[in-house]
Amino acid sequence: MTDNDRVLMVDGCQNQWDRKPKDARWDREILGILRAGDVSAVNSTIAIWENSRETLETIGHWNRRFREHADLTLLAKSADDIRRAYWENKTAIVLHAQNTSPIEDNIDFVEIFADLGLRVMGLTYNTQNLVGSGCYEPEDGGLSSFGKDVVREMNRCGILVCFSHTGERTSMDAIAVSEKPVAITHANPRFAKNVQRNKSDDMLKATAETGGVVGLSPYPHLFSTEGTVQDFCEMAARTADLIGVDHVGIGTDHHMSFTAHEQMWWTNGRWSRTVPSFMSAQGFLTADWQGEDVEWPAWFQTPADTPVITNGLREQGFSSTEVEAIMGGNFLRLYEQVFPSPAD
Amino acid sequence: MTDNDRVLMVDGCQNQWDRKPKDARWDREILGILRAGDVSAVNSTIAIWENSRETLETIGHWNRRFREHADLTLLAKSADDIRRAYWENKTAIVLHAQNTSPIEDNIDFVEIFADLGLRVMGLTYNTQNLVGSGCYEPEDGGLSSFGKDVVREMNRCGILVCFSHTGERTSMDAIAVSEKPVAITHANPRFAKNVQRNKSDDMLKATAETGGVVGLSPYPHLFSTEGTVQDFCEMAARTADLIGVDHVGIGTDHHMSFTAHEQMWWTNGRWSRTVPSFMSAQGFLTADWQGEDVEWPAWFQTPADTPVITNGLREQGFSSTEVEAIMGGNFLRLYEQVFPSPAD
Repeated sequence: MTDNDRVLMVDGCQNQWDRKPKDARWDREILGILRAGDVSAVNSTIAIWENSRETLETIGHWNRRFREHADLTLLAKSADDIRRAYWENKTAIVLHAQNTSPIEDNIDFVEIFADLGLRVMGLTYNTQNLVGSGCYEPEDGGLSSFGKDVVREMNRCGILVCFSHTGERTSMDAIAVSEKPVAITHANPRFAKNVQRNKSDDMLKATAETGGVVGLSPYPHLFSTEGTVQDFCEMAARTADLIGVDHVGIGTDHHMSFTAHEQMWWTNGRWSRTVPSFMSAQGFLTADWQGEDVEWPAWFQTPADTPVITNGLREQGFSSTEVEAIMGGNFLRLYEQVFPSPAD
Repeated sequence: MTDNDRVLMVDGCQNQWDRKPKDARWDREILGILRAGDVSAVNSTIAIWENSRETLETIGHWNRRFREHADLTLLAKSADDIRRAYWENKTAIVLHAQNTSPIEDNIDFVEIFADLGLRVMGLTYNTQNLVGSGCYEPEDGGLSSFGKDVVREMNRCGILVCFSHTGERTSMDAIAVSEKPVAITHANPRFAKNVQRNKSDDMLKATAETGGVVGLSPYPHLFSTEGTVQDFCEMAARTADLIGVDHVGIGTDHHMSFTAHEQMWWTNGRWSRTVPSFMSAQGFLTADWQGEDVEWPAWFQTPADTPVITNGLREQGFSSTEVEAIMGGNFLRLYEQVFPSPAD
């Protein structure tokens, strides 16, 4: 690959287990894998169910890593930081909470976490919270009063609103409130795979109409283990046909080597001892599920395989400009519009 | 007073009750009083016993105030911010924790709170904590292992180490560890009033030898209600004779309108229902004390009276340069040496 072939790649979501220092998997090995894939930026999940103190701990871990692995990574506070990472052959980390749990019940905490570098926040994670309803919740009562304030405060503080795990009614309510573009950083269209976590045509179109971006994922539950990179790129083409190529991105949702214990935390948090029926009833795992390794597609075993997607999009018939937009340019434009400007 | 008479004034400590929004006393009235006294900067206490989440809440209150009262105040992240406040006729707020309670047991939280603007932190508040022993603790076992790491981390992150409420052995241990100058932001020499909270000659000299500053206070418990401004300025002169005029500052410890409930929080926190015997035995309040209004000296009822100190120092015989140093220049120099540089 020559330097001219390089594409600034932004991954809208990747996850590692990061609750305790001993389990911190965002280690030098993973950062090396991201470099092997020439990934210029990745949204790193810093909260799923974690409260304010727990999220401060995770930010503390990242602050250590930015010092210890300064040759490989840097904190992305602005789109310019991502451009710098691209030129310096590093991977910029966009701090991403998949839930509003870090702000607990305090509207002031939106600014606090923005000041600490948080740039993307999902309104809900699968279930109902103080802000609204998640994508697996049987009833979605829409965005709460607090939720409306949270969306406005996220707009003001430069945190991107994300609907990846949010119910459709709550998401649509948030679009009506938000004065900034919004995102689905990591989910697929339901037309590609009809599961509750994936998004309806209406939801995809409404997101694109704000100027937002939908990050497509090879995560088996949202895509398939058997699907080829051609299938994946065909999904990208169909999505671009539906909402416009300027609104399509990549959000792999990739994670490596979760133990069963770690997977159960992501699934059940502190709020259930087993996968609850309202989740298993909607196609996500079974009540007796005890955790198991995710079998990623053969062509996307790790983020080191990222260039396979770039090439796949070219072969699918996207132009160079379109490939650059899907691989990173669209998310970069969105971040530029939503994140605080460095002068703020 | 002509503009030529203006002195950049830094107050090393002021306190208001700030636990809950409804009780937030750092209101427009207090900010107006600070402006009436032409105070260019004041260390505002944001934690006494508060843990990490509670301290985030208080920082949240300040973030609101910086927006709502931007005509009167701004956040002091650097010495230059204080100079800007002086020229713009505002009062810069230096965020000051009087205890290490905000960082709880997590060394990473030093950087987290520095990133949120914390610039001064007392190692202990009266009693023993994870870091060391307070000034009222009957036994002072010195700086703990964790405490040594905390001092080093405060050096690295640009947070000034303060001994105002810290035991002498713990303080001396911290001086041996610290690579940056340290401070006693608000306490008097024991030669002026012999109470446990005031400092020995050795302690004052050791602080000055680091390049640090001792902020003198008219707070009755540390000074006296009857003492005149001449008495106060004579104390300043004796202190300057002992440690050098470049190491003397003002730290009023002023607070207004505390209710008994609020005073009991400052005294007993969550850890005792009454003033414990080890505190009353050392001259600070009695076990049956239920809170009462502090009777400030007639010449220093509020920070609006600050120019009385400036004039008193002139009449005491200090030169203009020396008056400027004591009123603010010394703390400003110290902040410049210790706080993170704006480029960091």
